[in-house]
Amino acid sequence: MDLPGAPPLPRIAPDLAELAGRLFAEMRATDHDGTGITRETYGPAETLAMRRIEAVAREAGLGIAWDAAGNLHITLPGTDPTLPAAACGSHLDSVPQGGNFDGAAGVIAGLLALLGAQRAGPRARSLKLLVLRGEESAWYGRPYLGSSALFGSFDPKWLDLPCLQDPSLKLRDAMAREGADVAVVEARQRLLAPQSLSHFVELHIEQGPVMVARGVPVGLVSGIRGNFRHPAARCLGEAAHSGAVPRWLRRDAVLGAADLAMRLDATWRTLLERGEDLVMTFGIFTTDPREHAMTRVPGEVRFTLEYRSESERTLEDFWQLAEAEASEIARERRVRIELGSAVRTPPAVMDARLLALAQRICTEGDMPHEVLASGAGHDAAIFANAGVPSAMVFVRNEHGSHNPHEAMDMADFLEGAAVLQAILLQGAEALRA
Amino acid sequence: MDLPGAPPLPRIAPDLAELAGRLFAEMRATDHDGTGITRETYGPAETLAMRRIEAVAREAGLGIAWDAAGNLHITLPGTDPTLPAAACGSHLDSVPQGGNFDGAAGVIAGLLALLGAQRAGPRARSLKLLVLRGEESAWYGRPYLGSSALFGSFDPKWLDLPCLQDPSLKLRDAMAREGADVAVVEARQRLLAPQSLSHFVELHIEQGPVMVARGVPVGLVSGIRGNFRHPAARCLGEAAHSGAVPRWLRRDAVLGAADLAMRLDATWRTLLERGEDLVMTFGIFTTDPREHAMTRVPGEVRFTLEYRSESERTLEDFWQLAEAEASEIARERRVRIELGSAVRTPPAVMDARLLALAQRICTEGDMPHEVLASGAGHDAAIFANAGVPSAMVFVRNEHGSHNPHEAMDMADFLEGAAVLQAILLQGAEALRA
Repeated sequence: MDLPGAPPLPRIAPDLAELAGRLFAEMRATDHDGTGITRETYGPAETLAMRRIEAVAREAGLGIAWDAAGNLHITLPGTDPTLPAAACGSHLDSVPQGGNFDGAAGVIAGLLALLGAQRAGPRARSLKLLVLRGEESAWYGRPYLGSSALFGSFDPKWLDLPCLQDPSLKLRDAMAREGADVAVVEARQRLLAPQSLSHFVELHIEQGPVMVARGVPVGLVSGIRGNFRHPAARCLGEAAHSGAVPRWLRRDAVLGAADLAMRLDATWRTLLERGEDLVMTFGIFTTDPREHAMTRVPGEVRFTLEYRSESERTLEDFWQLAEAEASEIARERRVRIELGSAVRTPPAVMDARLLALAQRICTEGDMPHEVLASGAGHDAAIFANAGVPSAMVFVRNEHGSHNPHEAMDMADFLEGAAVLQAILLQGAEALRA
Repeated sequence: MDLPGAPPLPRIAPDLAELAGRLFAEMRATDHDGTGITRETYGPAETLAMRRIEAVAREAGLGIAWDAAGNLHITLPGTDPTLPAAACGSHLDSVPQGGNFDGAAGVIAGLLALLGAQRAGPRARSLKLLVLRGEESAWYGRPYLGSSALFGSFDPKWLDLPCLQDPSLKLRDAMAREGADVAVVEARQRLLAPQSLSHFVELHIEQGPVMVARGVPVGLVSGIRGNFRHPAARCLGEAAHSGAVPRWLRRDAVLGAADLAMRLDATWRTLLERGEDLVMTFGIFTTDPREHAMTRVPGEVRFTLEYRSESERTLEDFWQLAEAEASEIARERRVRIELGSAVRTPPAVMDARLLALAQRICTEGDMPHEVLASGAGHDAAIFANAGVPSAMVFVRNEHGSHNPHEAMDMADFLEGAAVLQAILLQGAEALRA
C-alpha cells in the first residue's frame, strides 16, 4: 500500500505544529496562576479558551456555531452535505489547579486536523471539531455536561447542582452567564443527531503511567472502562479491650475488612491472568476516628470499593464474587460486611473497526503504539453510548493528569495528532468495509 | 484433706457480705453522675472512697497508715512482727465515666479478708490491705502511680504530667492536694521493702469476656501480659488514578497494610496452635483523610500495631516475624512498611506456687474456676516485678471494664473474695513448701 508520494500517515505540517505550540503557550499564560491551570466548567476561562480556538478557525474560514449548551461546533464543509460528518473533539475545562493538556490537547489536535484537511483540498464529507463544555466533574459533581446535552442525556436536575467551590453559584446560572440557552437544555432537546455523524474520534493525554512505562508515544484505546462504586461500605465487628479479649471471642473489623481486600486482590490477579480487564481500589479505608484507639479491638471500618472494567459482565461478576467473599468472612470472623448497592457507570466500547484502522495506520506509518483501555471516563464514551462509532487516541504523558505536573512532549502530541487526523479522514471508509 | 469441721474454703460471713454490698452502694451513690462512675486519680472522689474504707477499718480496730504517695496501708497485726506480712490490695480510682467495680472490688474483698481473719483469732503473720492510688492511666497518661511509688519506681518526671482532662492541673499539685508528700516521691524513696511482704494477692473484675463465655465465676491469673506497641506505623505507596493505573504499576498502601494484617493474623493463629499466649490488634488503621478518595489508589495508610503476651520471648519473636513479613510485602507490592520502634511493657509472671495453691483451694472448695492470662495491666504486676511473689483472682464480669456497664454479680464477688482470703492466709506456707 505504500504508494510513492502517498505516505500512509501524513505528519502535521511545521507551521501547524507551531500554531499548536502557540495555542498551548497562550492558554497556559492566561490560565496558570503560579500553582496550576484552572479553567472552570462553564466559567469565563473556559469560554475564553473556546473563543481562542474559534478565532483561529474563523480566520481560516471554517464554519462556526455555538449550540444551546454552549458547545462550539467548527465545521470544514464537504462537497456532499448529505453525508454524515466525520467528527473529532474534546473539552477545554480543567480541574482546579490542573494541567494544561487534559482536554486542550484533543481540541488543538482536532483543529490541526481540520486545518490540515482544508489545505489538502475539497472532499465529499464534512469534518467537524466539537469543543465541548464541562467535562470535569470537579466543579459540579457531574462529568460530560456538554456532550450529554448534545444527545439529550443531560438530566435537567443537574441544572440545580451547586458549584462545589462556590455553593452560591448554581450550574444553571453559570451556563446562562456563559451564553447557553438553559431552557433548551432543560427541555432535553437533542442538539445533534447521532446519525448526522459517521464517527467520532478524540485525542487525549493518557492519565495513567502505562505508556511512559512501555515507552510508546501513542496509545489506541480499546474501550473506556465502566465502574461499579460502593461509596459507603462498612465492616462491623465489636469494639473490645485489646489485651483482655482472646482471639476466639473477637470480632475485629480491621481483620474482616483486610481479609476482604486480600481475597479480592487474589480474585483480581486471577481475572487478569484469564485475560479480563479490571482494576480495583479501596480508596478510603478507615477505623472510626471517634472511637478507635491503639488498645481497642476495632469495631468498625468504613471503606470505599471501586472496580473498573471494559466489560460490564466482568463488573457484575466481580460484585457477586465480592458479596460471596464478604459472606464467608462474616461467618468466619463473626463480623458483618455491608458493601451497599453499586453506583454504576457502564463501560463504553470503542468501535472495533476504527481500532483496527488505527492499528493499521500506526503500523504502516511506523509509529510505535500500544492498545490499552482507558481507565478514566471521556466525552468519547457519551458519543459511543449514543450510537456514534468512536475511537480514542492517547498521547504519552508523565505524572498523570488533574495536577499541574502533566507533562506531554510536543513531539508525542504531533504523532498523536497525525493519527487522529488519519482516523478522522479514513474512519468512514473503514466503517463501510 | 476434707477434715470434718475444717472446710477447705471458708466462705464470706453474711454480715461481711452485707457490708460489702453497702460499701459498693455508697460509693456508687457518691460517684455516679447519671452516666457513669468517676473517681479521678489523685482526686477528691478517690480520697473520699479511701476514707470510707479507712473508717470501717478504724472502727474494727485495724492499723491505719498513709504513706508519702497517699496510699492507705491497713494492717491486722500478727503476733510475730518479724514475719513478712501477707498483703492484698487494689485501687479506688476509675476512668472517667467508668464502672463501680474496676479496682473497688479488690479493695473491698481485701477489707473482708482482714475482717474475717480478725474474727478467727490471733495469728503469727500480719495481714495488710494496700489501698493504692492512681492505677488508671486515663488521667495522667501513666498507670500504677501509687504502687510504683511504693517500690521507688515512680519516675519523678511524671510529677509534671498534666491532667488529660484539665491540662492546667499537674500531677504534682493533685498529689499534694490529696495529702501526698511530693518531695519524698520525687526523691524516689522506697515506701515499702519488697522483703517486708511474704506475698501479694489482688482481686479484680475480669476486663475481658472469657469467664462469661466459659461460665465460671472465678479466674486464676497465670500472668499479666506485657505488650509491644507500634503507635505510629505506616505503609507508604503512591497515590494514583484509580482507573488509569493498572495493577502492575500500582503501589497500593491499603493492599500493603491489609497484606501485613492478614499475614500476622495467620502467624497469630499458628502461635496459638503451638500453645503460645498472644493477642494482636491493629486498633487504628486509616488512609489519609487529607488526600484519600474513592477514585484514588491510596498512597498512605497509618496504623497502630499492639501485641500482648505473657512471654517476652513471644513478643520479641512476633516483632521479628512482623518485620520479616513487612520486608517481603515491600518487595512484592513495591510499598514501604515502617513499624517504627516498639514501646515495651514487660510481662509480669504470677508466682507458680501461689497459682498451684489457688487451683487446689478452688478444686477442694468445689469452686468452678479457670486459669487465664490477664490482658490488662494491674498493680499486681508492679509487686511481681519488684520481687514480691504475687497472685491474682479474677471475678466474672459482663461488658468489660472502663465503662458504666460493668456488671459483677455479688454472688460471684463473694466467691472470689473467699478465694482471695484463702490465698492471703495460706500463701506464705505454700511459698515455703
